[in-house]
Amino acid sequence: MNFAIVRFIVGWVLEFEAAFLLLPAAVGAIYGEPRATLAFLGTALLCLIFGFFLKGKRPKQTDLYTREGFASVALSWLVMSIFGAFPFLFTGEIPGFIDALFETSSGFTTTGASILSDVEALSHASLFWRSFTHWIGGMGVFVFIMAILPLMGGGTTMNLMRAESPGPSVGKLVPRVKDTAKILYEIYIGLTIIGAIVYCLCGLSLFDSLTTIFGTVGTGGFGTYNDSVGSFSPLVQNMITLFMILSGINYTAYFCLLRRQFKDAISIEEVRWYLFIILGSVGIITWNIHKMYPSLSETVRHASFQVGSIITTTGFSSTDFDTWPQLSKTILVLLMFMGACAGSTGGGIKVSRIIILIKNIRRELSVMIHPRMIKKIRLDGHTLSDETLRSTNVFIAVYFIIMLASVLVIGIDNFDFTTNFTAVLATLNNIGPGLEMVGPTQNFAIFSPFSKCVLIFDMLAGRLELFPMLILLMPSCWKKY
Amino acid sequence: MNFAIVRFIVGWVLEFEAAFLLLPAAVGAIYGEPRATLAFLGTALLCLIFGFFLKGKRPKQTDLYTREGFASVALSWLVMSIFGAFPFLFTGEIPGFIDALFETSSGFTTTGASILSDVEALSHASLFWRSFTHWIGGMGVFVFIMAILPLMGGGTTMNLMRAESPGPSVGKLVPRVKDTAKILYEIYIGLTIIGAIVYCLCGLSLFDSLTTIFGTVGTGGFGTYNDSVGSFSPLVQNMITLFMILSGINYTAYFCLLRRQFKDAISIEEVRWYLFIILGSVGIITWNIHKMYPSLSETVRHASFQVGSIITTTGFSSTDFDTWPQLSKTILVLLMFMGACAGSTGGGIKVSRIIILIKNIRRELSVMIHPRMIKKIRLDGHTLSDETLRSTNVFIAVYFIIMLASVLVIGIDNFDFTTNFTAVLATLNNIGPGLEMVGPTQNFAIFSPFSKCVLIFDMLAGRLELFPMLILLMPSCWKKY
Repeated sequence: MNFAIVRFIVGWVLEFEAAFLLLPAAVGAIYGEPRATLAFLGTALLCLIFGFFLKGKRPKQTDLYTREGFASVALSWLVMSIFGAFPFLFTGEIPGFIDALFETSSGFTTTGASILSDVEALSHASLFWRSFTHWIGGMGVFVFIMAILPLMGGGTTMNLMRAESPGPSVGKLVPRVKDTAKILYEIYIGLTIIGAIVYCLCGLSLFDSLTTIFGTVGTGGFGTYNDSVGSFSPLVQNMITLFMILSGINYTAYFCLLRRQFKDAISIEEVRWYLFIILGSVGIITWNIHKMYPSLSETVRHASFQVGSIITTTGFSSTDFDTWPQLSKTILVLLMFMGACAGSTGGGIKVSRIIILIKNIRRELSVMIHPRMIKKIRLDGHTLSDETLRSTNVFIAVYFIIMLASVLVIGIDNFDFTTNFTAVLATLNNIGPGLEMVGPTQNFAIFSPFSKCVLIFDMLAGRLELFPMLILLMPSCWKKY
Repeated sequence: MNFAIVRFIVGWVLEFEAAFLLLPAAVGAIYGEPRATLAFLGTALLCLIFGFFLKGKRPKQTDLYTREGFASVALSWLVMSIFGAFPFLFTGEIPGFIDALFETSSGFTTTGASILSDVEALSHASLFWRSFTHWIGGMGVFVFIMAILPLMGGGTTMNLMRAESPGPSVGKLVPRVKDTAKILYEIYIGLTIIGAIVYCLCGLSLFDSLTTIFGTVGTGGFGTYNDSVGSFSPLVQNMITLFMILSGINYTAYFCLLRRQFKDAISIEEVRWYLFIILGSVGIITWNIHKMYPSLSETVRHASFQVGSIITTTGFSSTDFDTWPQLSKTILVLLMFMGACAGSTGGGIKVSRIIILIKNIRRELSVMIHPRMIKKIRLDGHTLSDETLRSTNVFIAVYFIIMLASVLVIGIDNFDFTTNFTAVLATLNNIGPGLEMVGPTQNFAIFSPFSKCVLIFDMLAGRLELFPMLILLMPSCWKKY
């Protein structure tokens, strides 16, 4: 491993985090919260200093292979979460370090799982920071850095992008990585601004609009109220549903729309399946829960909100879905596995991987029936390479192994199986709430520090699509050359 | 599809079932149960007649491709289960057809999940038949037929064997399929006889010895008492543990032992991992539950019994493990996924598939770190083909999809998640008991007829390793040519 370049990259990320921390400090100043303001300013200073020393001189050798790219990204996210946890410690709002780290990792990874039972007790600055971490993590901090800074030349930056962008293969929208990153952030910022304006127009305050839209477009899910968004008006809830679903769409679709390639935009198989699955799930759940709510419009509102919230792995809740019948809960659990589109800010296995998997299985069965048939698997008109198929299979295998191993080790806390299982699902897929003791009205404070560390690992592994975190665990990754 | 050959094969299987049914009829006669005796004789006659007409003339074209092989096996198992259910209906011991079919499928597939709450009320003939179906299904009815009957010549019978034998690749022990089948059944019968003698010597009656050893070597798990084997003496329970673990070992190891190739026998990676996992699990569970039992020997007995019972997918229970702490229960759930060795009578994903999967993942990570490295995956000294790797990946993907889809649809009965999840695990992996409402002291009667049908499908799909049942669902399989 080329340690110099890893150090250099982690240093840069800390410098950026210092800049990001100024925003909640400003919020603290506006709301007259001197202690919180100081906590955020102090942390920003710490980041600046540590980042400066880590960064050091620009290394001579700036080639980034997969190993360095993946390790840099994984380490950066870990360091970013550790430093992001300091304000909660400095303000005393979260006294324990593991708890604070859990909360920040949950923020950056856009999970939205909390260890707090009373978020309304937090300062405005801290609430803003929690939601803002969703926004930073949603599109990714490296995508951001690459969009504005020529860190290193050439195509080697692709390995950073590959580690941070969700999906079986990175779709470069335009030939240059830097331009792709720019376009992605432009769309992202566009969605954020439009959403914030819509929320304001529907009656939310500017503060609530901003924090809620950060959680929506980042598909995070931290709320600023104890009942998540349950107390917002039906109109606001429906708007949140809309923006959640929009945020789970593959950004390539927006890129096509902006270029007026409407036919290309609607021909993306993944997006069509994604919308179809949402419609189907809302239909079944509406039928299944219609007796629990007084009117059809309220039933549809809750069904579509919860489906949108879970499939995009946002994790807001408009109602306590843990009280729904088992069929509806099982649908939500399956949507937790699936997640949103590749190339969106959502987590999970991703719709396109499921499509590839099913096409692969169909091919395998066809070959059994017609042994001499040669059948290629196509997605959006392109033939998929054996490489993509193999890595999709390996991804899913690794996914289930990490999931089952996590369920096993947190079993040591002796909670029931549903709690453990959905806690792992909710963190590994960056959703937020699970069922039973980690249901939408509960929180993750119940777990032991050891289990919290396992879940922090799951959140980071889920956000970075497993391999960057796993590479850190391989001894051969740490050999110098 | 060549329908003539499929018809011919299913016909032959019914003829064999007629012969098998004479044994419980004899048991009924010995114990003076006229109604049961008549029920079994009547069913045998039905099988004989239907089999005779289905069999008809030997078809001219006897080539068996994968399609015909898989479809014949899947249909035979279904037909065999349907006819095997009639005695329970005729005696009135199980009044509903779906329930009787559930019980027989559970028997043939060596699942051991029951819908009966009071098995002690059954006649001896029926109890014997329940356990005997385990024995027939354990090694497989086609393996049996091939061992004694030259059904059709040449290597095409391999496709029948492939459909019925568990594991990622069929290990032909000797060049000819017929001889391989013979050797397998000789080992199987040998284990059965030794086990029955050992049980008798430990104090069980001949009837209990036979029914228990059928459930043990077939890795089935139907008991003849309401508390499974809980009332047997500690010595008997320890012997059952021993024979369960022996039955989960890859039969290739016994073949090597018989040929005095001791070095080959102990060098099988899968067997070593299997024994290592058993030791590790027993160790952890013993530590985890030691406060629940008065003495260490009792703790170890229950821990090893339950680990052996679950990893081999037998499903006997010596104690109510649903009351154990969550860590122990989670270990058991993970062992449910894994299952026993390929080439044994046990179910589940199989230890060798897990080994292949983990080696594959390690290779993938190594390639990320050293992009120019070429690394082959080896098992027992042989390089695994890409074909085996791909089919292992597809198997596991199909496995999880069937599992999740089943959990979803039986969710309609509105039981809790743990019940649904472990009910599907217990049937798909041919284990028997799950947790909560399908725990070791409970049964499957609670489910609706629809859910029972789903679970019957899961049992058959699990026993035949998924693809034969799936091929039946493919419309293109039913096209004539």
